Amino acid sequence: MLTYSFENRGKESLYTWLYRCMKDDILSGKLVSGEKLPSKRSFARQLGVSTLTVENAYALLQTEGYVSSLPKKGYYVADIQPAFHRSQPGAVSAPDSVAVSFGQPEEQQFFADFSSNQTRKENFPFSVWTKLIRRVMTEQGENLLKNSPGGGILPLREAIAEQLREFRDMQVSPEQIIVGAGTEYLYGLLIQLLGFDSVYAVENPGYQKIWKIYQAHGVACRYIDLDRSGMQPELLKVSGANVIHISPSHHFPTGITMPISRRHELLAWAGEEEERYIIEDDYDSEFRLSGKPVPTLQSIDQNGRVIYINTFTKSLASTIRISYMVLPASLLARYRERLDFYSCTVSNFEQYTLAAFIREGHYEKHINRMRNNCRKKRNLLLDAIARSPLSALVSISEQDAGLHFLMHVNTKLTDEELTKRAAEKGIRLTGLSYYFHGGEGQSRSAHTFVINYSNIDENRIEEAVERLYQALHFSVDEVALPC
Amino acid sequence: MLTYSFENRGKESLYTWLYRCMKDDILSGKLVSGEKLPSKRSFARQLGVSTLTVENAYALLQTEGYVSSLPKKGYYVADIQPAFHRSQPGAVSAPDSVAVSFGQPEEQQFFADFSSNQTRKENFPFSVWTKLIRRVMTEQGENLLKNSPGGGILPLREAIAEQLREFRDMQVSPEQIIVGAGTEYLYGLLIQLLGFDSVYAVENPGYQKIWKIYQAHGVACRYIDLDRSGMQPELLKVSGANVIHISPSHHFPTGITMPISRRHELLAWAGEEEERYIIEDDYDSEFRLSGKPVPTLQSIDQNGRVIYINTFTKSLASTIRISYMVLPASLLARYRERLDFYSCTVSNFEQYTLAAFIREGHYEKHINRMRNNCRKKRNLLLDAIARSPLSALVSISEQDAGLHFLMHVNTKLTDEELTKRAAEKGIRLTGLSYYFHGGEGQSRSAHTFVINYSNIDENRIEEAVERLYQALHFSVDEVALPC
Repeated sequence: MLTYSFENRGKESLYTWLYRCMKDDILSGKLVSGEKLPSKRSFARQLGVSTLTVENAYALLQTEGYVSSLPKKGYYVADIQPAFHRSQPGAVSAPDSVAVSFGQPEEQQFFADFSSNQTRKENFPFSVWTKLIRRVMTEQGENLLKNSPGGGILPLREAIAEQLREFRDMQVSPEQIIVGAGTEYLYGLLIQLLGFDSVYAVENPGYQKIWKIYQAHGVACRYIDLDRSGMQPELLKVSGANVIHISPSHHFPTGITMPISRRHELLAWAGEEEERYIIEDDYDSEFRLSGKPVPTLQSIDQNGRVIYINTFTKSLASTIRISYMVLPASLLARYRERLDFYSCTVSNFEQYTLAAFIREGHYEKHINRMRNNCRKKRNLLLDAIARSPLSALVSISEQDAGLHFLMHVNTKLTDEELTKRAAEKGIRLTGLSYYFHGGEGQSRSAHTFVINYSNIDENRIEEAVERLYQALHFSVDEVALPC
Repeated sequence: MLTYSFENRGKESLYTWLYRCMKDDILSGKLVSGEKLPSKRSFARQLGVSTLTVENAYALLQTEGYVSSLPKKGYYVADIQPAFHRSQPGAVSAPDSVAVSFGQPEEQQFFADFSSNQTRKENFPFSVWTKLIRRVMTEQGENLLKNSPGGGILPLREAIAEQLREFRDMQVSPEQIIVGAGTEYLYGLLIQLLGFDSVYAVENPGYQKIWKIYQAHGVACRYIDLDRSGMQPELLKVSGANVIHISPSHHFPTGITMPISRRHELLAWAGEEEERYIIEDDYDSEFRLSGKPVPTLQSIDQNGRVIYINTFTKSLASTIRISYMVLPASLLARYRERLDFYSCTVSNFEQYTLAAFIREGHYEKHINRMRNNCRKKRNLLLDAIARSPLSALVSISEQDAGLHFLMHVNTKLTDEELTKRAAEKGIRLTGLSYYFHGGEGQSRSAHTFVINYSNIDENRIEEAVERLYQALHFSVDEVALPC
C-alpha cells in the first residue's frame, strides 16, 4: 500500500512534500508507468491529511506530466522519459549528467570542471560590492526609483565611456551606449534593429549560443569558416550576408586574434554597401594576458558600421547580468525611432552600484587582480602538464589570450570517448568540435579540447592533471601516429 | 572669436568639457548651422590645450551629429533638429517636453503627474530591502555566483508558486515559472516561443508598448475592439489571429474586468484549434481595491492554452526589473527544447533578495500597505474633486480596480488643447484616446483622461485639483451640450 511519512517535511507545505515524495518514487521507478494511484479521498484518509492536500499534489504531478488522469477512472503514473536535458549556460553537459527533474538539474559534481565560466567566490569583490550597494541605497534614494532611460542611467554610461576611452582607446559618447541584461538580450535587440530580413554571418567554429539566438529569432544565418586570421572574406562575400557577428580580439574557442589587415578588409566589405554592419563582440578582451591589444574595429571604423558589444558578466560575475553595446550614429537614430520605448532591463540598484564600482577605480583593480590570478592559474596548469607524463600525449596552443587555451590530444579515440573517460575521473572537458557547425570542421578539430581554467581551484590543479593523465593514458594502439 | 574657459570643469576631462560647452552653444543657437569651426590646431593653441583634446571633442560632436566634416575643408556646425523625443516608459510626454539632448531628456517638472507609473520613495521598503540584500550577500555567498537556471533560481520560483496558490488560487509548479527582466523581455521570449508566423491579437484600446513590441519583432498584429466585457469574440474570430494578448483582471486603460462568461468564451475559442494561445497579462491584480477577484484564465483553463504573466515592477518598483510567466505543460516542453539555452536576465543577487522578501512575508505586508495607500489617495482625490467646482465639469468611472480611474471632461475642446492647458498649470494628463489604434475609437474616447494617482504626493492632491479646475474652467461656449 502506497504511503508516505510527513515527519521530515520541515517547513514545507503538506501538498508539496507529498508531491515531491511521489515524484521521487516515479523517477526512481518505485511507482511504475501505468500504475493506478489511490483515489484522492481514500489516500487522504490513509495519510491523515485533507483531500485538498492530495488534490493539490495530484494536480502538480499532472501539470508536470508525472501522472495523467482518465475521466471517471482516476489517476495513473505516466510514462516518464528523462527528456529534458539541461546544460549550464555557456557550457556543455557531460553525456551522463542527464537531468532527472524538470528545471532543476542534478548536475554531476566534478573534481575539476574545464567547461565552466562561473566566477569563483574568492574572485568576486564581495566586501566592496556590499559596501557600495549599501551606500547607493542611502545616497541615491529617490534616484533608484526614477525610471532609467532605455539605454541605462547616465552615470553608468559615462563610466563605461570613460573606461572605453582609457583602456580600448575608443572615443564614444555616453549617449551611444545601450546597457542591457546580458549580451544575449542585446543580440535580440540588435536583430530588431538590423531587421528580420537581414542575413547574419557567424564564425564557424564559434559560440553556439549566438547561433541559437539567431535561430530562435527565425533569421537567416550563415556559418563562415575561419582561417588563421579569422572569418574569411571570400566566403563571406559569397554568403549573401549583410551583417557579421565576430569576436576579433579573442575568438572563442580558437583564441585567434584577428590581425589588423583582416580588420581593414572586413571594414572595407562593410563600407561597400548600405546596411552592412559588423557586430564586434569584445567579450573577454580585459583578460588578454600578454602582447599589445589590437585596436578595436569600432575605433578604426570610418563609416559608422561597427556595433561594439562588451559585458561585465565575464569580468565581474556571470550572475550579475550587465552588458552594453555602442551604436554608431546612424543606428542610434534608428534605435531612438523604433526601440527607444523599451525599458532598460537592468535594475537601477545594480546600475548605480556598478557605476560607482567603475568610477572609484574598483573595477580596474579587480580586473588586474583577476588577470594576475588567471595568469597564475594558467602557469600552474601549464607547468603541471609539463611536469606530468601527460605532456607526452598532448600539445597546447593559444595560451596567451583570455580565459582558456586549447589542448590537442594525440589519439585515435573519439572526443566522446575521451570526454567520457575524463568524466569518469571527475574531469569535465569540452571538445573543440562542439563549437563547429557541420561535419568537416568537426572532424578536422577532433581530439582538441577547450581548457577553461578560470574557474579551477588552484589547489586542485596538480591532481586534476594527474587525473587527466589517468583518463587519457591509452593503450599503445589508441595512440595516433605522428602526422 | 570662439573661446571657452576650462576653469569650472572640476574633475571632467578637458575634451568632454569642451565637447559639452560646444554642444550647449550649438543647441542654444549661439553656434549656428553651417558655421565653420576653427581648425583643430589653431583652436587648441588658442585654448591652451593639446590638439588631441580638440580632436576628441570634435570627434564626439561629429559622432552625435552636432558637427559634420568636409574632407580637406574642416568642421561645420550641423543642422540640428530636436528630433529625439523621449518619453517615460509607460507614459506619454506632454507635447512641450521635447528633449534637447540625446538620451538624457530634460523632462518638464510637473506639480502633479497623472501619467507616471514610478514608485514613490516612501512606498519602497528601503530598510527591509537593504537588510535582506546584506543578509543574502552573507548567507548565499557562493550560490550568488552559481549560474541561475534559465527560468530563475528555484527558491524564487517556489516563492512565486506559493504566492499564486495563496492569492490567485492557481496550482502552479515552480518549474512552469520563467523569471525575466520585465514583462517586455518576456513578451519577446514568447514571440520566439509561439512563432514569428503567429498572428497576435491585442486589445484596442490597450497598452501601446505591447503593440510596439510586436511591431519591433515584425509579426502580424490585429487590433481588436472591446465591448463592456473586453475583447469581442466575433471580431477575434474573423481576425485570423491565433494568439491573444489580454489583461482580463483589469484592462488598461479602461479598467474593465472581464466577466467569467467572456473568459469561458475566449478559452473555448483557444481550445477549438491547435496552436491557439492566450497571454493573460495580470499586471496589477494585486491592487484591486474592492470586490472579489474573478478567477484567472490560467486557473480555469482545461486545455493548457493560457500563459499567465505578472510582474513585480508595478508592485515593488518599476526600476527593479523582475517579472515572470507561467507556461502550460505543452509550451514548457517547447521552451526547454528551443529556448532553454538563454541565461536568466535577472541578477542572482536580486532574485535571492526577492525570494527572501516574499518568503518572509514582507511582500504581502508591502502589498497591503500599498493597497491601503492607493485606496487612501484615490479617496482623497475623489473627495477633493467632489468638493471642487471641477465636479460640475467632469464625471468619474472605473474607480474600483487598480492604480487609476477615468475622468471624462464635459467639453468641446480637443484632448490636445486640454492636455496643453493642464500642462501650463503643472498638471500632466494622458488622454484615453492615446491608447487607441486607429481613428474611430480615438474620436469616441475623446475628452476622457486616464488618471494614474499612485504616484501623486498626498499633500498636493488638494492643490492639483484646484489647478486642474483652473485649467479646465472653460468659457461657456467651450462646454459640450449634454448628449
